[in-house]
Order: sequence, then C-alpha cells, then structure tokens
Amino acid sequence: MPEARPAVRGWVSLVGAGPGDPDLLTRRAIDRLERADLVLYDGLVPAAVLALATRAELVSVARRKGEKTLTQSGVNELLIAAARLGQRVVRLKSGDPFVFGRGGEEALALSAAGVPFEVVPGLSSAIAAPGLAGIPVTHRGVASGFVVVSGHGPDAYEPLLGGLAPGAATLVVLMGMGHRLEIAGFLVGAGWDAGTPAAIVVSASRPGQRVWLGTIGTLGHARWDDVDAPDLPGVIVIGDVVTTAAGVASVATGTLVEEYTWQSRTI
Amino acid sequence: MPEARPAVRGWVSLVGAGPGDPDLLTRRAIDRLERADLVLYDGLVPAAVLALATRAELVSVARRKGEKTLTQSGVNELLIAAARLGQRVVRLKSGDPFVFGRGGEEALALSAAGVPFEVVPGLSSAIAAPGLAGIPVTHRGVASGFVVVSGHGPDAYEPLLGGLAPGAATLVVLMGMGHRLEIAGFLVGAGWDAGTPAAIVVSASRPGQRVWLGTIGTLGHARWDDVDAPDLPGVIVIGDVVTTAAGVASVATGTLVEEYTWQSRTI
Repeated sequence: MPEARPAVRGWVSLVGAGPGDPDLLTRRAIDRLERADLVLYDGLVPAAVLALATRAELVSVARRKGEKTLTQSGVNELLIAAARLGQRVVRLKSGDPFVFGRGGEEALALSAAGVPFEVVPGLSSAIAAPGLAGIPVTHRGVASGFVVVSGHGPDAYEPLLGGLAPGAATLVVLMGMGHRLEIAGFLVGAGWDAGTPAAIVVSASRPGQRVWLGTIGTLGHARWDDVDAPDLPGVIVIGDVVTTAAGVASVATGTLVEEYTWQSRTI
Repeated sequence: MPEARPAVRGWVSLVGAGPGDPDLLTRRAIDRLERADLVLYDGLVPAAVLALATRAELVSVARRKGEKTLTQSGVNELLIAAARLGQRVVRLKSGDPFVFGRGGEEALALSAAGVPFEVVPGLSSAIAAPGLAGIPVTHRGVASGFVVVSGHGPDAYEPLLGGLAPGAATLVVLMGMGHRLEIAGFLVGAGWDAGTPAAIVVSASRPGQRVWLGTIGTLGHARWDDVDAPDLPGVIVIGDVVTTAAGVASVATGTLVEEYTWQSRTI
C-alpha cells in the first residue's frame, strides 16, 4: 500500500511574469499574485509586478555574484514547506517558468512531495522581446522556424548551433550578452555569413527599451557601456527576419537606436 | 520633400490571443479588445475570448478548406482602410502574432501605409502547450535549447531539422499533425533514436485538453479519431524533456491520456 500522507492545504503556482511590463502579465498571473500569501521571485522581476501581490510576503531568491543565495534545492524546500503550512505560494519567474527558469526542477520536487501546484505560462522574452522590437521570429519566405538557446556558455549553445544549417532558422540567444563575441565567432566558423543581420533587444517592454541593429560580424563589438547593459536582460536575434522588422529603417553597421519607440505607446 | 499624407486617426493592434483560455490573455490584450471598434480574428480564437470585445464588430478571416476567404493582401487592405476611417482595430491571432501568424506581413503593410500600430505579444502554444502539460521545453542537464518549426510541409521543416544534431534540443512542431508520420520518419532517417520520447498536446488550455505520450517511433501511429483532432490545435514535442514532465507517470507505447488534468484547475 502507498504510504499515507496528510493532505496539503496550500498550493504553489509557478507563474511566468513575462518580460517586465505589468500589462503583459496574464489575467491568471495577476489573480495568483493578488491571492498569494508568499511570493518567491527572481532578480529580473520589476517592482511594478511585485506590487500586485498586495497581501503577500515578498522574498527574493535572486542569484547575484558574490552574494550568498538560496540554492535550487533550498528554493524547492521552501516552496514545499510553505505549502504544507497552508500558504498560497507564487513562484514568480521572469518570462516563462519553463524557459531557462528551472521550473521543471521545481515541478518535479513539488510533484514528488505531493504538493498541489500548477504552471501559469508567461510571455518568454525569446519571442516577446523581438516582437516588441518589430522583429517577427518567423516570416513567410524568410524563416519557417526558430531556435532558442542559452548563451550562458559554449557547453550550452555549441551542441545545438554547431549542426544547424547556416541561415536555416532565426536564432534567439538568451543570457548570451556576455558571450556575444564568442557566439558570433562560433557561427562564422560554422559557416554563417558574417553579414547576416543581428539585433540585440535590451529591457524589452520596460522603460528605456533599446534595440541595437547590426550583423553577426559586428555583434561582438556592440557597445553597451552607455546603457548599463551587463545588468539588463538582453535578447540576441540573428537572421534575415531582423531586416523585415516593421518600422526598422535599416540594418547598418552596429548602431544603437536610442530610446527605441517603434512600439506605439500612445494608443 | 516627402509626400504629405493626412494623419490617420485610427490604429491597429496586432494582438496575440494565446492558446485559448481567456485567463491566459495579457492585461493589454484585454484592454485592446474592450476598446476595439473592429476585431479581425483567425479561426482558432474561441468565443470566450471574442466575447471580451463587447463593442466591436467581429469579422472572421479564417482560412477553411473549400471556402472562399480573404487573401492576406485583402486582410492588409481591410486593416488599413478601417484605421483610415478612424476605427480602433484589433487583429486577433491565436498564440503570438509573430509566430506563424503572418503578423510580420501585416506590420510591414501597416508601416508602409503610415498607419499607427503596435504588437501585443501573446502566449505561443510552442511554449505554453508543453508547459500546461507539465513539459518544460528546457531543463537543466537535459535540454539547453529548443527548436520551433512549422510542420506544414517538408519545405518548412526539412532544412531546419535536417542539419540538427540528433537530441541536441527539444523539438516543438506546430501545424504538424497532418505530417507527423513523415516528420517522425525524417527524424529517424536523420539519425534520431526512434525511442526518443514524444508528446502531442491537443487543445492546450481549453476544455478537453489532452496529451498523448509516446516516442518518435510511435508518433506517426497516434490515433486521434476519438478526439476529432484534425480540427484541433495539436502541438508535437520531441525530446527527453517529455520524460521529465512533472506528474507524467511514464512514457509508454503511445497511450492517450484521457481528460488530462495534470494542471490543477481547482486552485
């Protein structure tokens, strides 16, 4: 017979917060935040989103360089313990909880512990950041597919990008700002044309959204000092779809489009 | 001097409706629907979403077999003409407007015509459908990237899937229900292990959401007669992440999980 366990009254909702603008939260995400007793959030979630959790205790589980932080198993244990105490817990992640968010690990831990939980998908910046910059990840006659990859390190992106036929799909690289020179070099070495259009979308949907336009050849040399980008979420997009971007005037030699306002904010 | 054009008072919002459940609309999408004078919608958008556009004229621009329908240029012209008449127009697409939605073509046409427009990203079923079935498209140590491709025909998927190193990423195939046998055969021919786990998520987020679990080898033989799937949106997911799916008991030999209720609806 299976071991009897006491029923857990609380629950955990693994919620995607989207790219940052609270208007890009789903109705379900807003409902869960409003009802939460406890919100465990990642570093990139802005204050305007957290402000919706009016009755919750807010706990950051951000990983920051040089700081002691909660390990993943520590986060899992906290989620389980809070739910067993009867709390309504939101595990809030920027983007989508299952796109580089370790949501799968948390779901497995919650499932193993018998804690009721759900997944509330959020807008992944892999699609939303290009879209808000006027760049469609697919476009008829240009790209019939796209590849999303972590740019965190060569181990993450080389096995996937290495075999890909050059130009066969739009590439979207998340967490690749620190390795953009290496990624560009790897692609050229794998047969990609250095003149392939490329874009970097920084702070998509947030105040100060900016778009850099260039090519694979100039990607590594994009200057970000003036926009403090190392701490900002940057999404790299590579492929001919960059030139089809509506409202994007030209793909030049690596120009920073200041205060990029293609998206009409006045509607 | 540039040709003077009269200012356009109306606007067009290219809105992603997400996978179907109205609770998975963004707050901005709901706002645009509530304020719209005219909504042009695609076939897969459910009535519960359209119902939010309380003051708008609703016009379907669905493509159906054997029916005369509006061409893409006809849709573009209608959007432009309505905006020039001062109307607030929502172009409503299931999923995200820039993922196989021809949103790029509409954005280019609107831009060329000088019509104010915006993009409101929506939850793409490429990520949300697996997520709602408990399948993370990325998972640490299992998949550090994913590939999204149209399964509409070999021209769409072969150039991208052909070069991909077998097992290097999670594959998500949209619009591939009709070609799943050919896709499975192509992958095996390209070196993929026929035992690689595969899933099909049908009607994600809608009443009657169902998940089929199997392998590449059994994918082509999944029986859908009993769930009337040819008319339903089905998302194919291939890769080891299928087995890491929380709450998914086992990847068997192609069993249909009836009334799949992994996602807690009772929260």
